Amino acid sequence: MAAPSRQVQVVSYPEGEVGPEHFEVVSVDVPDPGAGQVLVRNTWTSVDPGLRLRLRAEAPAGYFASFPLGSALDGVLTVGQVIASNAEGFEVGDTVWHPYGWREHAVVDAGVELMNGAGTMRVLDVADTPPQWYLGPLGAIGLTAYSGLAVADALGGGETLWVSAAAGAVGSLVAQMGVRLGHRVIASAGSAEKVAWLVDEVGVAGAFDYHREQPARALERLAPDGIDVYFDNVGGDHLEAALDALRMHGRVALCGSISDYEGEPTGPRNIFLATAKHLTLSGFRGSLHMELLDEMQSRLGGWLREGSVTHRETVYAGLDQAPVALQDMLSGRTSGKTLVRL
Amino acid sequence: MAAPSRQVQVVSYPEGEVGPEHFEVVSVDVPDPGAGQVLVRNTWTSVDPGLRLRLRAEAPAGYFASFPLGSALDGVLTVGQVIASNAEGFEVGDTVWHPYGWREHAVVDAGVELMNGAGTMRVLDVADTPPQWYLGPLGAIGLTAYSGLAVADALGGGETLWVSAAAGAVGSLVAQMGVRLGHRVIASAGSAEKVAWLVDEVGVAGAFDYHREQPARALERLAPDGIDVYFDNVGGDHLEAALDALRMHGRVALCGSISDYEGEPTGPRNIFLATAKHLTLSGFRGSLHMELLDEMQSRLGGWLREGSVTHRETVYAGLDQAPVALQDMLSGRTSGKTLVRL
Repeated sequence: MAAPSRQVQVVSYPEGEVGPEHFEVVSVDVPDPGAGQVLVRNTWTSVDPGLRLRLRAEAPAGYFASFPLGSALDGVLTVGQVIASNAEGFEVGDTVWHPYGWREHAVVDAGVELMNGAGTMRVLDVADTPPQWYLGPLGAIGLTAYSGLAVADALGGGETLWVSAAAGAVGSLVAQMGVRLGHRVIASAGSAEKVAWLVDEVGVAGAFDYHREQPARALERLAPDGIDVYFDNVGGDHLEAALDALRMHGRVALCGSISDYEGEPTGPRNIFLATAKHLTLSGFRGSLHMELLDEMQSRLGGWLREGSVTHRETVYAGLDQAPVALQDMLSGRTSGKTLVRL
Repeated sequence: MAAPSRQVQVVSYPEGEVGPEHFEVVSVDVPDPGAGQVLVRNTWTSVDPGLRLRLRAEAPAGYFASFPLGSALDGVLTVGQVIASNAEGFEVGDTVWHPYGWREHAVVDAGVELMNGAGTMRVLDVADTPPQWYLGPLGAIGLTAYSGLAVADALGGGETLWVSAAAGAVGSLVAQMGVRLGHRVIASAGSAEKVAWLVDEVGVAGAFDYHREQPARALERLAPDGIDVYFDNVGGDHLEAALDALRMHGRVALCGSISDYEGEPTGPRNIFLATAKHLTLSGFRGSLHMELLDEMQSRLGGWLREGSVTHRETVYAGLDQAPVALQDMLSGRTSGKTLVRL
């Protein structure tokens, strides 16, 4: 029996800054779940920077499709509780994640694919884990951080690990996990405040502000004997400095190269050092390491619960606040993961 | 009881071209082997380009030491027969390799380290293998080629493999092994003759002369669906073209970057594709993969014996010819591996 429920719909694409005027909250009828479907009462929905790219008539090539006008936002990771099930493996009361966010209820196919490569809808362990963590550190961000350490063979600890953009979403998890795993962590970031947080709160062995000190110089000072692993979120001069500083058999996890996204990209001119020092550079994407999802959620979840790894979130209350949350996040007024509690 | 034997000694360092006038053949007394030593009658000695770098008062930093004047050339790989043994594991009649070349006899410590990371002196299987192969394709060159395929996870076959400098010492073995392993091999080299050899004799799927066609263009033509593995002997624009052409989960074996050795090195400006396509770039040196030596000698030895992999050698007869062999090789008058038969 269909029942009314509220959802956010896109009414127009913003020319400049996004605001509540580009959305409206609409009441629609949600049908009963058909065969292989469940009805979910959503409890947390994600607010991601990438949404902005889809609020245009044509999304960038290779990215997710744009959100159609007059429709709900499909492809936004959300957590909720099953309130009616017609699908094997899903019971009433289960907490699940699925891609139909920015609405209060959703009818979901059991095999639906999530965005960001987080697999299909599945039951989440919320016995002692806050469910919204699955939209933050235990979701795509956590998987990127954890699988980067995995591809660089750095889950064992006991080495010197440099993390760039170490106050960012991924980098801050990498730096904290690095410390927790027993690495000597060197961290770089773009402000004195971030450096202070890394040293005082995270407890890295050394940190520097790359606006004030060239990475090559800073590494000479903070890791005079070299580094074993570099988790690269920046590229450019950071990657070159890493190749110089890496010891024999060093590894690089190539997570991103922000420095190449604007302006003329420069490759690492000292790439020949990879041959000389038997270095391995592994490009990777968390979404291609779904085999590590359970392990990541178990280990990182444990560290988050015991407090040895922390994360920040900014929470807005109620579906009506979702457009404001997006606007605030894009304007830099939120910190950490931005969420709406429904 | 000491016995006389002849050896080549360095008498002066060449200013320009090296020639026989920089050497003399001297008769010296060779002592009986002491405890843990063997006496070897050398049968083949290697003539390597690297010798030239050691014929100067000061060898380049990080390279092997220069050859002292008035001494034999230590650190030149050589094959010979044990004619007296005072060391466990070595019997009279055994064929061994050791680093005391350019002489007719040598007393060798059983645990002596070879150059080029080929391990210590050891007994070679010459039942149906020409002993001089151990100075060529079954030695450092073969180990470099084979371990490069190993680090790029390309020993399985069935993929598209691009080899640059594919007519060179290492590249020609890689191209032939690639074909033998069942890869679709694309090869590049620097002349029409080399390209013809690769197509007609080696049987690669496609080959191009990089002087006549840009690597990026050639790959579009010869591998329109992309490549899985790139064996890099060149760097520069070759490596950039490979990063463009590699498919998801592609691998690069970084063996050398000739293009960077002279002039201003350029890094691969499209290194961000490694993240996007989950590529792995593995710098490596054969000498750090001694664990593959037996496997390489067994497999590549078999292919060489059956003729599915070939190699070329230029042989000079007698110790007196060694300086001429070096001169000819450095002047480009030899092809393939240059050897002296004693």
